[in-house]
Amino acid sequence: MTTIFRKLVTLDDCRRQDEADALQSVRAQFVLPDGMIYLDGNSLGALPVAAHARMGHTIGVEWGERLITSWLRSGWMEMPLRIGDKIASLIGAATGEVVVADSTSVNVFKTLASALALRPDRTVILSTADNFPTDLYIAQGLIQQLGGRHELRLVDDSEIERHLDQHTAALLLTHVNYKSGRMYDMPGITRAAHAAGALTLWDLAHSAGAVPVDLNACNVDFAVGCGYKFLNGGPGAPAFLFVARRHQDAVHQPLSGWLGHAQPFAFTSDYAPADGIARYICGTPPVLSMTALECGVDILLSVDMAEVRRKSLALSNLFIQLVSERCDDADLQLITSLDEDTRGSQVSFRHPHAYEVMQALIAAGVIGDFRAPDILRFGLTPLYTRFTDVWNAVDALQRILAERDWDRPEFRLRKSVT
Amino acid sequence: MTTIFRKLVTLDDCRRQDEADALQSVRAQFVLPDGMIYLDGNSLGALPVAAHARMGHTIGVEWGERLITSWLRSGWMEMPLRIGDKIASLIGAATGEVVVADSTSVNVFKTLASALALRPDRTVILSTADNFPTDLYIAQGLIQQLGGRHELRLVDDSEIERHLDQHTAALLLTHVNYKSGRMYDMPGITRAAHAAGALTLWDLAHSAGAVPVDLNACNVDFAVGCGYKFLNGGPGAPAFLFVARRHQDAVHQPLSGWLGHAQPFAFTSDYAPADGIARYICGTPPVLSMTALECGVDILLSVDMAEVRRKSLALSNLFIQLVSERCDDADLQLITSLDEDTRGSQVSFRHPHAYEVMQALIAAGVIGDFRAPDILRFGLTPLYTRFTDVWNAVDALQRILAERDWDRPEFRLRKSVT
Repeated sequence: MTTIFRKLVTLDDCRRQDEADALQSVRAQFVLPDGMIYLDGNSLGALPVAAHARMGHTIGVEWGERLITSWLRSGWMEMPLRIGDKIASLIGAATGEVVVADSTSVNVFKTLASALALRPDRTVILSTADNFPTDLYIAQGLIQQLGGRHELRLVDDSEIERHLDQHTAALLLTHVNYKSGRMYDMPGITRAAHAAGALTLWDLAHSAGAVPVDLNACNVDFAVGCGYKFLNGGPGAPAFLFVARRHQDAVHQPLSGWLGHAQPFAFTSDYAPADGIARYICGTPPVLSMTALECGVDILLSVDMAEVRRKSLALSNLFIQLVSERCDDADLQLITSLDEDTRGSQVSFRHPHAYEVMQALIAAGVIGDFRAPDILRFGLTPLYTRFTDVWNAVDALQRILAERDWDRPEFRLRKSVT
Repeated sequence: MTTIFRKLVTLDDCRRQDEADALQSVRAQFVLPDGMIYLDGNSLGALPVAAHARMGHTIGVEWGERLITSWLRSGWMEMPLRIGDKIASLIGAATGEVVVADSTSVNVFKTLASALALRPDRTVILSTADNFPTDLYIAQGLIQQLGGRHELRLVDDSEIERHLDQHTAALLLTHVNYKSGRMYDMPGITRAAHAAGALTLWDLAHSAGAVPVDLNACNVDFAVGCGYKFLNGGPGAPAFLFVARRHQDAVHQPLSGWLGHAQPFAFTSDYAPADGIARYICGTPPVLSMTALECGVDILLSVDMAEVRRKSLALSNLFIQLVSERCDDADLQLITSLDEDTRGSQVSFRHPHAYEVMQALIAAGVIGDFRAPDILRFGLTPLYTRFTDVWNAVDALQRILAERDWDRPEFRLRKSVT
């Protein structure tokens, strides 16, 4: 890599940045193991300290003592909409436009089906070949179920706008790419889609809680997102979905379960959708997992998302600069954008021995992600990642790359993936 | 009601039955609030004592300390199949035939779609008008999505066999009815469906963990079930589904998410289903809710289901006999079958003031369920319901019915449902 910054960064510089960090105190709201540099918050966010007591209360008091009465008394029934409203405030949505339910995959199914039904004369779902696979898989499953009348067209980033035309029913994009961290121009692309008469479905898996998102300012139609990454909602946390108010009376979703019914407890035999976003609830919400999610979301509600973005960029800039200055390895290729406007909250590199490098990093206490076939991915979570963490991570990376001994024990671990 | 038993039951008789109860010691494995008689385990099962420590470990150690590494190190990735195998042993299924995923509603969607795809020349989904509504709602959503070519035909119990014919693609029945507690003849009805060339999809929501179920002995094709009722898996616990081995290579399910892919971490852009039951996994499993479910299931694995059935029938017989002997109210009508072969693990009555009666019972510490428009439902959970609980519940019911004062405060609570 070529050096692109003027002044060499020192560990003391990083320490000073930590001391000046406006989000410094937020880190104490998370459990972070000693001796671990955790740069995988975009795969599983850290445990909020408050979750211990809150989950203990939900389990011991709400479930254990109040039992069935908790559906009303402990507010369980309202959780999908209550937590949805909280997430709405993080992504530029209004009250009543977001609901927490099911998994991201299931929510792609529901919202994509809704979008296709709103464009009955169009047959193309447009997406990118590097989109997160589950979005594509779900589109494929939906197309098959709809009789094969639709086409999933996968194009390169640069070709999206060219392919938006009178056949495009829905544009299905992930706002921040899970491998490269590249962030799309949501306002511009949404405008282009609308100009072609297409609807937009944005996957916010790597955006919500990480980068500024303003769905309504962008006039987005549908969105989905993940609870267990930057929202710190716990392993396999329930996901969320957004439907713009203007579509809510017109949309149908095929997973028409009882808790999305207008009167779930009337127990009638014909489905009638609830008003508004509640029709996107299907079965009974997983209360325990939802409780943990709410703990994570509550921390984000207490911070300034503009500050989160400032720190995120400072962290990624630091990471890029330190690698540029210190890692003398021609095989290491930055794939995250140098342009801040198109960068999410991660830094990724290609390396021919990416798998072995990540195994060595993990052995050294630096937890990032390997993504097949050759990507090193480092998530930056401004709520708890320190500038000195970045220093130490790059320090370990530099040592491992300098050794280049791909046959040593930690490099010879069997690949658990691919 | 008419007295149908010879000898009057006394409280001492109930105490003696508790003392002789082979499952007596299991009750200590559950948290049950003092002063509450909980007869709603068919809506939300009680908290297993072990769940406190187990959830604390999952939250504090697995999530908090091990973070992302827990997907392999703490066995999170295997949970859907591991807990599925445990449930399989409770319902007469084999290893690899059951998976835990999503909600019951979502699982009805997946399995019903699979069944219809296996019978492409048939157009009728046969069910009963009194089936649990979400099963019907999901069938309606699926039919709409498939273009309206199918028909959901709802018939009375007595007419099921008459309506099974060359048009029937799938027979969708709930084994134990949520209102009446009536249990179907699973072997006989499944045989009749197969004789007509139809596939069977049994909803075991009120069966799993409550009554003997032997899916493979009955040659059942598909089944779904609930984690939060008799499996004691916690509020909104993940659900399960069963697909007979003989169908597993041929079936497709439309919610083709990444964790049902043959190689989830290869991140290819084309969906290819995993071998076997794993293709019914869609998104990332909700680990916290799954952990609680496993605690509940583990208790059931330690008991003899034949003993559970024996006690369940003894409890329901006692309930029916006591009401018959003590509740002199011509308006109270038993709707649960007197025939043990067609009775699940609950006792239900109609009463014109069912809502008010249940409110008064709840105020008296007896927690049952009201089901619109006029049903009193009492769930009997042999793992923790005592014979003296039944005595005390009927004692309260008798007093409330004798007063018949529907205008007193606890009767005047606003109905939260209908």
